[in-house]
Amino acid sequence: MPCFKLTVAYDGTGFVGWQKQARGTSIQGLLEDAVSALEGRRVTVTAAGRTDAGVHALAQVVSVQLERFVDEATVVRATNARLPAAIRVLDAREMPQGFHARFRATRKMYRYRIWNTEILSPFERGRAWHVPSPVLGVSAMDTAARLFEGRHDFSTFQAAGSDVQTAEREVLSSRVVREDPVVLFEITGNGFLRHMVRSIVGTLVEVGRGQRSIASVSEGLASCDRGQAGPTAPAEGLFLVCVEYE
Amino acid sequence: MPCFKLTVAYDGTGFVGWQKQARGTSIQGLLEDAVSALEGRRVTVTAAGRTDAGVHALAQVVSVQLERFVDEATVVRATNARLPAAIRVLDAREMPQGFHARFRATRKMYRYRIWNTEILSPFERGRAWHVPSPVLGVSAMDTAARLFEGRHDFSTFQAAGSDVQTAEREVLSSRVVREDPVVLFEITGNGFLRHMVRSIVGTLVEVGRGQRSIASVSEGLASCDRGQAGPTAPAEGLFLVCVEYE
Repeated sequence: MPCFKLTVAYDGTGFVGWQKQARGTSIQGLLEDAVSALEGRRVTVTAAGRTDAGVHALAQVVSVQLERFVDEATVVRATNARLPAAIRVLDAREMPQGFHARFRATRKMYRYRIWNTEILSPFERGRAWHVPSPVLGVSAMDTAARLFEGRHDFSTFQAAGSDVQTAEREVLSSRVVREDPVVLFEITGNGFLRHMVRSIVGTLVEVGRGQRSIASVSEGLASCDRGQAGPTAPAEGLFLVCVEYE
Repeated sequence: MPCFKLTVAYDGTGFVGWQKQARGTSIQGLLEDAVSALEGRRVTVTAAGRTDAGVHALAQVVSVQLERFVDEATVVRATNARLPAAIRVLDAREMPQGFHARFRATRKMYRYRIWNTEILSPFERGRAWHVPSPVLGVSAMDTAARLFEGRHDFSTFQAAGSDVQTAEREVLSSRVVREDPVVLFEITGNGFLRHMVRSIVGTLVEVGRGQRSIASVSEGLASCDRGQAGPTAPAEGLFLVCVEYE
């Protein structure tokens, strides 16, 4: 029974997110429909990261078990033929048995885009968080961002009501740069809690606005208290960039 | 009576084009509604280039006469507050009397984007012409593109049924480059005929596919015969980049 690793890009605008929901259109649902049509029976697909409504992916990784023997190029062509243009299967690879997109992932990289000038370009709608003013203090934001590097308990930056075994995660890189008029936050880690990236971004923007000290970010992280985090930044600025495996 | 020069960006997707039509939503119509609300009476706006349905603008230039005395920042804020996010007034400048966005324009630059790889990115929908294969011969396309530089009668590359006094235009620069996986065509001239850029692009893509010789482009231009041009490339790849004035 061949196991496939699909690399999938999507514009998350208008979807309820990766995961199937009682109402609304999910990326998982559409992808399962497309793969099921190829397979001739209902199949389930598993993603490395279950992105929220409005969050985008440049290269989400998805695993799926097929009974039919089809070649990689056919999987790409047949699924894309059934998917809307907002979702594209970029690549399909046959993997050894037991490959699991989520459990086998060793690293993920997320990017968050902030449009930091008065007027939001029409071409950036739904693809960035518009922070018209003030000009964000990127140097302070980057200093604060680096505090997240290393192994920490990220309870502070977790969605309310999350239920995970441990909130400990390792962040390998966490940086902020300005590519005018965009402020980019990029973070790579071995795993992420629900809303963790957006909660960190909301906190870093408070630093960039001069509303919050770098020390308070460090204290917030150590506190493991959700109340110490800044607001959760909007979904539309967030992109899952890539997922790595051993 | 102050005259304003507005710089306007828009994502042309879903609009009937710049110009007001009997049916459908035009950029001109929405902009006139927004400026009229500020002015308190119906006003007419004039654009440097009347872009077709689906064509985008990074910096269209628009002129409008106002009776009310309002400052430049207010014009920007008040119009954007009434426009959909797909259209943004980037800048407003008060100009000397007699400024006319179309008649006073001395140069315009257009960019055409071709997505030249198998799978169209979800983020490129409506913003590029998808030419999945073959890999276009950009060097030949660029050689052909340069044939358009100079003063020529562009009748060959004019929309059928056009009625203009003269089809003579001067092209200052016409170049093709690859920024993988995008093939970019950029053309600057003192004026453009209807469908001229898209008709040139359709012709250049025939060259890039190896279906057409560079000599035939030169002969086509000299023939002043619409039948010698390639197909008109789709609107969605075309961007009005900027307009210059003396």
